[in-house]
Amino acid sequence: MKLYDMALSGNCYKVRLMLALLGLDYDSTPISLRAGENRTPEFLSMNPLGKIPVLDDDGFIIRDSQAILVYLAAKHGGLQWWPDNAAGQGEVTQWLSFAANEIWSGCAIARAIPKFNRQGDLAAAQAIARAALAILEGRLRDHDWLALGRPTIADIACYPYAALVWEGGVRLDPYAAIGAWFKRIRELPGYVGMAGLGD
Amino acid sequence: MKLYDMALSGNCYKVRLMLALLGLDYDSTPISLRAGENRTPEFLSMNPLGKIPVLDDDGFIIRDSQAILVYLAAKHGGLQWWPDNAAGQGEVTQWLSFAANEIWSGCAIARAIPKFNRQGDLAAAQAIARAALAILEGRLRDHDWLALGRPTIADIACYPYAALVWEGGVRLDPYAAIGAWFKRIRELPGYVGMAGLGD
Repeated sequence: MKLYDMALSGNCYKVRLMLALLGLDYDSTPISLRAGENRTPEFLSMNPLGKIPVLDDDGFIIRDSQAILVYLAAKHGGLQWWPDNAAGQGEVTQWLSFAANEIWSGCAIARAIPKFNRQGDLAAAQAIARAALAILEGRLRDHDWLALGRPTIADIACYPYAALVWEGGVRLDPYAAIGAWFKRIRELPGYVGMAGLGD
Repeated sequence: MKLYDMALSGNCYKVRLMLALLGLDYDSTPISLRAGENRTPEFLSMNPLGKIPVLDDDGFIIRDSQAILVYLAAKHGGLQWWPDNAAGQGEVTQWLSFAANEIWSGCAIARAIPKFNRQGDLAAAQAIARAALAILEGRLRDHDWLALGRPTIADIACYPYAALVWEGGVRLDPYAAIGAWFKRIRELPGYVGMAGLGD
């Protein structure tokens, strides 16, 4: 497998973490957004959105971090990470959407504005981030994992940008249940970190 | 089944359309955001995000339009709308994420600003909407359906806000392939429309 990757991207890290937890080998091909490597005809033929990550699994090309998590877990994860029944898939998908919407527009954007000079309203993104963290904290106060009572791709999808949000000026110390969840994730066999996670 | 619903919400319409295409009976319970009915303790106990739609299927509570599509299709749709293999689920999920991210931040927000007096930058949302429509148009120029060569929940997730975007001041007539796709969707057995779809 070949991952079109960027070291500091939380969405790429999501995929690297899943690959590591599943014990899968892959080659990482770094894509420089600054150099426009995501806008070449070759890259756009794989992903017309011009975004990373993209996974090439022996010619099967898939984009979007949430979609790649579903694909990898369904193909290689047995039923632990992504179940095969309607209620279980629905419950997990709620959190994939939460990662793609609330966590992205809040935590990821609040980080990207100072870190990558992205244009945007930092205070607005921080407010969305805090609202998203409050939802996570509420869920994790009486659940060890976001869905199904066990680690699933729901956790892998939500963890990276939640844990990186301090780089966007949002303090994490008010969120004790989230902190305990971070710790549980970091103790999973095969876990790998990334710069900024402080572990 | 009971759907916590709002007539003019594209996300609720997504679920109503899926229920209709699957021939499923349900009761619609209207939720008035203006009256704060999404902020009552009772509603927040079902969905702490305070958003609609929420589906109650005989006590199984699920939020988020994309997650509800996965749940309904997996439970009642056979393998047509949501497949059971990794590559197929991955391919469809790419478009669920596209609906939750690009189509939401572009098409849905551009509509909500004038229609519901939502705060936001209309020109920025319209630009994101046009970029999203260009991606759809490119895909649909040589594919009848977004994924798997057949109607799936990918189409149901992306259709509503793409088709409603004219209410946000974005003209749809430059997008011929999207127009033909709208027509194919509207010819699906069981199809139901909503206000603003012009059909």
